[in-house]
Parts: sequence; C-alpha cells; structure tokens
Amino acid sequence: MKKTLLPLAAFALTLPASAEEAETPPPSPSDIVNAAPQEAWKVIAPEDLLVMTLAPNAAGAEREVIIQLLPAPISQGWVANIRTLARAEWYDGTSVNRVQDNYVVQWGDPNYDNPEAGGKAKPLPKGLKVMGEDDYVASNVQTWLSYDQLENKGFSVPRYGPDNRQDHYAMQVGNTSGWPIAHQSIVSSMTVQIDFGRPRRSWWPVHCYGMVGVGRNYSPDTGSGAELYTVIGHAPRHLDRNIALVGRIIEGMEHLSSLPRGKGALGFYAQDEADKRTPILSIRVASDLLEAERPQFEYLSTKSETFARYAEARANRRDPFFIVPAGGADICNIPVPVRRFEYTDEGDE
Amino acid sequence: MKKTLLPLAAFALTLPASAEEAETPPPSPSDIVNAAPQEAWKVIAPEDLLVMTLAPNAAGAEREVIIQLLPAPISQGWVANIRTLARAEWYDGTSVNRVQDNYVVQWGDPNYDNPEAGGKAKPLPKGLKVMGEDDYVASNVQTWLSYDQLENKGFSVPRYGPDNRQDHYAMQVGNTSGWPIAHQSIVSSMTVQIDFGRPRRSWWPVHCYGMVGVGRNYSPDTGSGAELYTVIGHAPRHLDRNIALVGRIIEGMEHLSSLPRGKGALGFYAQDEADKRTPILSIRVASDLLEAERPQFEYLSTKSETFARYAEARANRRDPFFIVPAGGADICNIPVPVRRFEYTDEGDE
Repeated sequence: MKKTLLPLAAFALTLPASAEEAETPPPSPSDIVNAAPQEAWKVIAPEDLLVMTLAPNAAGAEREVIIQLLPAPISQGWVANIRTLARAEWYDGTSVNRVQDNYVVQWGDPNYDNPEAGGKAKPLPKGLKVMGEDDYVASNVQTWLSYDQLENKGFSVPRYGPDNRQDHYAMQVGNTSGWPIAHQSIVSSMTVQIDFGRPRRSWWPVHCYGMVGVGRNYSPDTGSGAELYTVIGHAPRHLDRNIALVGRIIEGMEHLSSLPRGKGALGFYAQDEADKRTPILSIRVASDLLEAERPQFEYLSTKSETFARYAEARANRRDPFFIVPAGGADICNIPVPVRRFEYTDEGDE
Repeated sequence: MKKTLLPLAAFALTLPASAEEAETPPPSPSDIVNAAPQEAWKVIAPEDLLVMTLAPNAAGAEREVIIQLLPAPISQGWVANIRTLARAEWYDGTSVNRVQDNYVVQWGDPNYDNPEAGGKAKPLPKGLKVMGEDDYVASNVQTWLSYDQLENKGFSVPRYGPDNRQDHYAMQVGNTSGWPIAHQSIVSSMTVQIDFGRPRRSWWPVHCYGMVGVGRNYSPDTGSGAELYTVIGHAPRHLDRNIALVGRIIEGMEHLSSLPRGKGALGFYAQDEADKRTPILSIRVASDLLEAERPQFEYLSTKSETFARYAEARANRRDPFFIVPAGGADICNIPVPVRRFEYTDEGDE
C-alpha cells in the first residue's frame, strides 16, 4: 500500500487532481496517515497523559477517557495543578455535572459554581498555583517559538485569500508540537504589550472539538484546574484567550459527548435530574501507573511531510466520495492524528 | 429592559467597549435577541416544518425533533421528495442507524447503504425527483439574489483580514432569509460556468451544527431524501457543494446528538448492536396536522437591526464572562435564533 500511496499523494500536492484524472483513486486523509513512516509518530510522555475512569454505563460497560495535557510553555501552571489534584486523588468521587448541547461537557465538584446543586464545595488540596489572565497566552519572551516555526500554516486557510495565514479569530493559525495554535504579532491593546519598543508576539491554543479547558468564575478568577470541560460541538473559538486550555481528549470522547444534556441553566443537571450526573471513579497521571498498565499514545508530528500531505488532503478532499474540493479548511477541521500503541517490554523473553 | 438594552447595544456597535468601560454590563447576544421587537421575527410556514417522533427513551420520555426545511430556490427537488416521503408515511418504522462522533447522525432505512445491516432495502414511493450535482448550488440565473443582498456579511469574518467577507471554504459567506449561505462569483472550473460571457454566481447553504442533509452513495448518485443526516460536531464544511442540504433541526437536537455512537464502519451501528437503533415512529409535515396540533416557530430576520447587533455581539463578546473579544466569528458561530410560539385561535372565545 505505501508504495502506491506515497507517489500519488506527492502528486496530489502539486496538482488539484480529480478522482477522474487519477488512475487509482487519490488517497483519503486517513490513507495518507496510515502510510506514515514510524519516525513521523512522536510518543506522548506518560506524565502528559491522564486516565479518567467513569462509572460503568447502564449496560455495565466500562468507560475510560484519556486526556493528553498541553506541553510547556502553554498553561503549565494549570497543568501542574491538575497533576497535583490527580495525585491527591481529589477528582475521585466527583462527577460530570454539565452537558450543554453544541458547547461543553464539564466535570468536577457538583457543588462548584453550580446554580442547580446548592451544596458545599469540596476543599481543594494545598499547593495549587494561582494563575493570571496573562497566562492564557504564551509570548515570545518565553522564547517558545517564532511565527516561522509555526507548522503547516499554509493549510488551515482560505483558498481565495491574499493572506493565506488568515483565520476568523486570530492573525495566524497553524500547528506546533502537535497542537492547534493561534498567533498574533501586531500591536493590539487586548493582547500585545510593547517590550523594549518591539511588539510582543503572543500564542495560544484554540478551542477545537475535544480540547479540554479549565472552568472558572468571573474575571479575575482564572480557575484552578479542579473544574474541567471539553468541547462537544462547533469550535467555540470566542473562548480562546478568555479561559485556560490544558489539553485534549484522545480516546473515549464518546463517553462524554453522548451523555444526556442537562435541563438546568447552562446545561447543568437540574436538582430533579441529579441522578444523571456520571460518577468519576478516578483520574490518574499515566506515569503514576505501573509501566505495564500505562496507556501509550503517539501523535503524528506536525512537522512531518506526512502531516503536510494529510492537512492538504483535508483541505482538498479528492477521495472518491467528493466532487468539489473546498480549497481550504479551518484549523479545527485538520485534527492532529493520535493513536494508541501497545506496551512491549524489550527485556522480556 | 428593552429601554436599557437597545441604546447600549447600539453604542456597542460603534465602539469596542469593554465591560469595565460600560456602566451597565454590555448585553449578551441572547440579551439582544430577547429584546427584539416582534416585527423582527418571521413565522416559518407549516409546509416547511417536519415533526419527527422517535420512540420514547429508556425512561419512557417522549422524543420529538422539529426540522425546518430550506426555502426556494435551494435544494427544492430534495425538499419536495422529503414531503412526498413523509406524506407516503415512508419514514414511519425506519430508524436512526448511524451516529459518528464529531460528524453526523443519520436516519432512514437501516438497510440502505449500510455495511453493517446487509438486509433488503425498503422500496421508495413513486414520483420522487432525481436531482443532479448542479443542484447542490443555486446560481443567479435563477434570479435568487445578488451578493449585495447577502445579509450581515460583515460579521462572519476575520478581524484582521483586508477582505472582511472572507471564509475558509468560500469567497463570501453571510446570511440570507434566515440561513447561513456561502457565495462565489469568481471564475472557477469547479463551480462557475461562463454564461453569455459573464461569470455565473453560485450560492450554497453551509454545513453548520444541526443542519440536515441528504445521504447519498458515490457520485453521480445525489440521494433521494429518504436518507437524512444532521451535523453533531464541528462544521464539516468540506461537505458543502458535495451533498444536498435541505434544512436544520430547530428543536429536539439533543435527542439525536446524545445517542450512543455506533461501533461499525462510519459510525453505523454494528450487527451486534442493532438494538441501539432508535425507531422513528413517524415524520409528518406540520401543515398536514390539525391546525391546533401544529408546532409553530419563528426565526429572527437576518435583515433585522437586531440580528446585525446579535451577530456583532457574537463576534465581539463583551458580556461579563469575557475578557478579550475575538473580533470575528465564523458563520457557524452565529446561529440564527429560532423560537417556538404558541398557537392562538383568533376566532376562539
């Protein structure tokens, strides 16, 4: 398969071939990903994986959700808090309390900021960092990256635009280290401060489907990480830079997205439907599990040639079902491929 | 409330006021909609409303879904077929057969184009139109509208773009007659034919969350309307112009979006989970129901001043929760407000 797929996809990059023109049907985005060389896949550190175990469903089936945490420098204060909370087993016995259609699923203490519950909030462990609103974005004085390091910026863009880095919500978008990222370098009273006379660049992760963020109260509260949510509808990009993103769900999303919607304000389960709250049995950091019990995942490097071809194919679908390639795609329609791989102990016979 | 909300919102249109600057908190998008004058609301014709009744859920609760069909000239052949199928009671006894996370829920005959079922397809009624791929778009030789008639095109756009009508998937997007619409008028081998030497404009509805489309097989099949789907995730805009859209779900979306995801190919329910298919008891055209039993809905005119202020507020959230207004929004993040109103019989005592 690889032998036939790779040349075809390379060809597709240079010419807008239609299914009719190609002798073999052009590869779909997943065909391209499936043909990726192993070196294009990057292992996710166990320290960056959370295992959330929900109570079994009505049919008795187990429900496990895997969350990948964001790497430095983004949101690291909240990410550290989430590890602290997991290691204190604080999440154990909390629940999924809010399911708002086409918006978010939120979990944590049912008595936190919940108009419907009205009980007493669960005390938080010691040692949690208090983050500021400036921390919703990373800036280049943290020497994270420059715009030129933003990967594949050419694909999450309109076909017709004079500036093919344009996005509805930011000056530029693309991928960095396997994540969807927005960037801005122009002077804006909202996000850019002058730093020794030079405009300061800022960077932030974007609210795509499945991204995980930190529930908060009104500003200046920025949330601790005890309350978490994930996006279950069209990307609510207006939340970018207004709330902390800390990761994304990479397995088991269906256990959250298919939960019954709440009838209370903001989709919280109302008093008379408290039984709909899904109990959270535990949330663990994968690196704290026995090595043989750790789930292991890898993501497709967004610097890889395969990702570039995958992104181009997402923006210009030529696989047999399609008639008209869009000529572009928004950043949330080019999800970074992530897959599970099995544990093997080299030393074992 | 109206008296305080309207001036504030008008002010918000001209100045990017922050919550701090305004003495009263700026109105949220829903505050603006709630203050709309009655004349800004347009009644949806009963002929354009479908009532889909699903079997009660496990708890015995009734499940009703209301679909609004697209107006002329878009997709009218498929829309006519759907009324024909409903009036033949063809949908009665069919089911929801496919639930693919972050993509679509599909219903109809479980044996249509279903790799998992493998049974015999249900015969279709006589008199169904066969539509062509050209019918996925409307063109201005049908004298529908011109670009200047595209409403509120200024709001579903990037803040930083030189062309503020730009979109990732089309030359221009906006709203027309209460629907999200994309438009293109440049010469493109894909969608524009030369008509007496003038480029022909084309228009098409876009795949936002909750939009309803017509399942089809590979090209040149365009589908009859017997197989329908709705979007339950991030807008799959790459489907625009590749498949027919016929309407949107305006009530009861949660009865579809929260269904268990299918484990089969493409999210179809596999053989061993056929019991997860949700039975469809009936689909009726509202105008065929007794007048007193018809659900009645109205949408906020996308030509109204209220809609313009609502769209601007969606693109620049200034209500208290927000810190940084996005400065733009994509077309699917500005859903057209639709609400139910109650039947009143003028002639009744």
